[in-house]
Amino acid sequence: MVRGDESALSSILNPDNSILMLKNDTLIRALLRLPTPYTPVWVMRQAGRYLPEYNATRKRAGSFLGLAKNPDFATEVTLQPLARFKLDAAILFSDILTVPDAMGLGLYFAEGEGPKFERPLRDESAIRKLAVPDPATSLGYVLDAVKQIRRALDNSVPLIGFSGSPYTLACYMIEGGGSDDFRTIKSMLYARPDLLHHVLDINARAVIAYLNAQIEAGAQAVMVFDTWGGSLSDAAYREFSLEYLRRVMAGVHREWDGQIIPSIVFTKGGGLWLEDIAAIGCNAVGLDWTVNLGAARRRIGDKVALQGNLDPMVLFSNPAAISTQVDAVLRQFGKGSGHVFNLGHGISQFTPPEHVAALVDAVHELSRQYH
Amino acid sequence: MVRGDESALSSILNPDNSILMLKNDTLIRALLRLPTPYTPVWVMRQAGRYLPEYNATRKRAGSFLGLAKNPDFATEVTLQPLARFKLDAAILFSDILTVPDAMGLGLYFAEGEGPKFERPLRDESAIRKLAVPDPATSLGYVLDAVKQIRRALDNSVPLIGFSGSPYTLACYMIEGGGSDDFRTIKSMLYARPDLLHHVLDINARAVIAYLNAQIEAGAQAVMVFDTWGGSLSDAAYREFSLEYLRRVMAGVHREWDGQIIPSIVFTKGGGLWLEDIAAIGCNAVGLDWTVNLGAARRRIGDKVALQGNLDPMVLFSNPAAISTQVDAVLRQFGKGSGHVFNLGHGISQFTPPEHVAALVDAVHELSRQYH
Repeated sequence: MVRGDESALSSILNPDNSILMLKNDTLIRALLRLPTPYTPVWVMRQAGRYLPEYNATRKRAGSFLGLAKNPDFATEVTLQPLARFKLDAAILFSDILTVPDAMGLGLYFAEGEGPKFERPLRDESAIRKLAVPDPATSLGYVLDAVKQIRRALDNSVPLIGFSGSPYTLACYMIEGGGSDDFRTIKSMLYARPDLLHHVLDINARAVIAYLNAQIEAGAQAVMVFDTWGGSLSDAAYREFSLEYLRRVMAGVHREWDGQIIPSIVFTKGGGLWLEDIAAIGCNAVGLDWTVNLGAARRRIGDKVALQGNLDPMVLFSNPAAISTQVDAVLRQFGKGSGHVFNLGHGISQFTPPEHVAALVDAVHELSRQYH
Repeated sequence: MVRGDESALSSILNPDNSILMLKNDTLIRALLRLPTPYTPVWVMRQAGRYLPEYNATRKRAGSFLGLAKNPDFATEVTLQPLARFKLDAAILFSDILTVPDAMGLGLYFAEGEGPKFERPLRDESAIRKLAVPDPATSLGYVLDAVKQIRRALDNSVPLIGFSGSPYTLACYMIEGGGSDDFRTIKSMLYARPDLLHHVLDINARAVIAYLNAQIEAGAQAVMVFDTWGGSLSDAAYREFSLEYLRRVMAGVHREWDGQIIPSIVFTKGGGLWLEDIAAIGCNAVGLDWTVNLGAARRRIGDKVALQGNLDPMVLFSNPAAISTQVDAVLRQFGKGSGHVFNLGHGISQFTPPEHVAALVDAVHELSRQYH
């Protein structure tokens, strides 16, 4: 089997071949395609509304933003799923829109409506005024949370930091919230591509600064969520999303404090562009559930690790069906390292928590035969 | 250049090599990959809310269903876009949910909420009672509309009939309406696949009967809209959508009244399965805008024609940008026959009608160099 980046890594590995001082280094090793005894698993949005304890903390915090902007609360909810399930990673609890909020767009959540901005980018003068925020001042609450979570984790599992992609951030910044058709940003894309490129250039620099600040604060891997890149045409995806993901990958720390910092890029609906995403310098590509993992692996060879890709709706069946579907995903990937198990999208708020336990246990048990 | 099905067709072509008695046979010829002087174009949902005359007729009809269920109104709105734009095809004005409505589920439209069913399939006994409706009795209004539209078209351009795919119909029948996550149908898919297969088997037989009745009434090509197949995992798509599309293709008339009836299958978000869709016996595959047409053509070779795939949001820019984007799509496909120009999804209700004129003219003008 492929041994991944073993030789390149040997200089920074501890004598016992473990990475960092982590008690459980399976996530980092799998992202670097190094051997692991089983397939590591974490769940996108694992600290979320499907957990009663999350809802209790959110209630105490008063609101989603009250939760996300308070390092104590953010630490508390980040750790909640790890107390319940044998997950192999923690992911910072935050929102992908903290960066445009720090740019002054005024993030808020209307009840039951998802994120919105008070001051979306609706004219050229607003766009020309946009600037890269300094994370140390405007996003200090995130960096404090990272430090606090790292202390609380005590090297049990790695902490993943994250950001929205430049294009995905631009979608919200220009639409002013979610959208069915992305009419506003796409009108700009086709009629005034120069303006959109200006926004994306600033976003890319802001994302780099933000991810690097998270790494410097203690994030041990980073993930970029390109939630809306898959809404673009092939040509537009390459020009307006992939190119800026490439810049982010070029600017983000690859190593910090003597440790390699693996990076994951996830374009939802990006299965057609897998080879292209794998070529921008990330260590792993996230895949949604529409992609056959085996076909994906044949397409990218040993270039990157793959993360995914169980349909989140599988968690609405039953433990036996969950086990069958987990096995199908593991079998598609096949033998060897380089797979991080995850859902193909964020977990639904309606998921029964006991089915997440069934998922995590199934991954750990069933994956040993592939390693 | 590839000559498509020329030899197989020669027996049913008129002496002057035109198909049927059509004054404009470019759509049928392109679907059969026969030479045409330019690339034919039509627009998904071309008879729709972006046209003021459509809204006026709908107002007279009282409601969307009042419009769709009245052959006079359906004929009127089907012809409206043809009066405005030099389109190369008409498509029957109807709704994809007429079939489950005929099964007794009770289709209705809540204001601003999209289609819903009064009696969705929520338990096993409802599913066991489901039966294939006889189009002649329960869908007579559609067949009357087809006959009336054919008379009104007077062989100017061909009339396309259509249906929702078995899986897409099942989504609405089981969810009871639209859905963000298809939680209800996917719960059934993973926990009780036998029940879903029962629904899909009935749906496939109903779709075959419905499309054949449309062909017998005068539809000159048929299209199956698999709007939600792309929400499935790779394995689930093959088992629960593609397999039933295959059955539909096997059961639908390939010829009627001495004429070949070309078929188009469109799975939105189905770019990853292009080769598989091209192998189920359809004449053409519809593509959404995420797919590069050139890459798609290289993948399927001369197996089928391709239909698509401009991003509908391009129509929110301006005539010059529309022209540039039309040219990019034509250039991707390249020289030769086998391309039907269309949007990659239904036209937005907010589209300026004059931009549709710009689109149609651009396709006709710019495509001649590729033929």
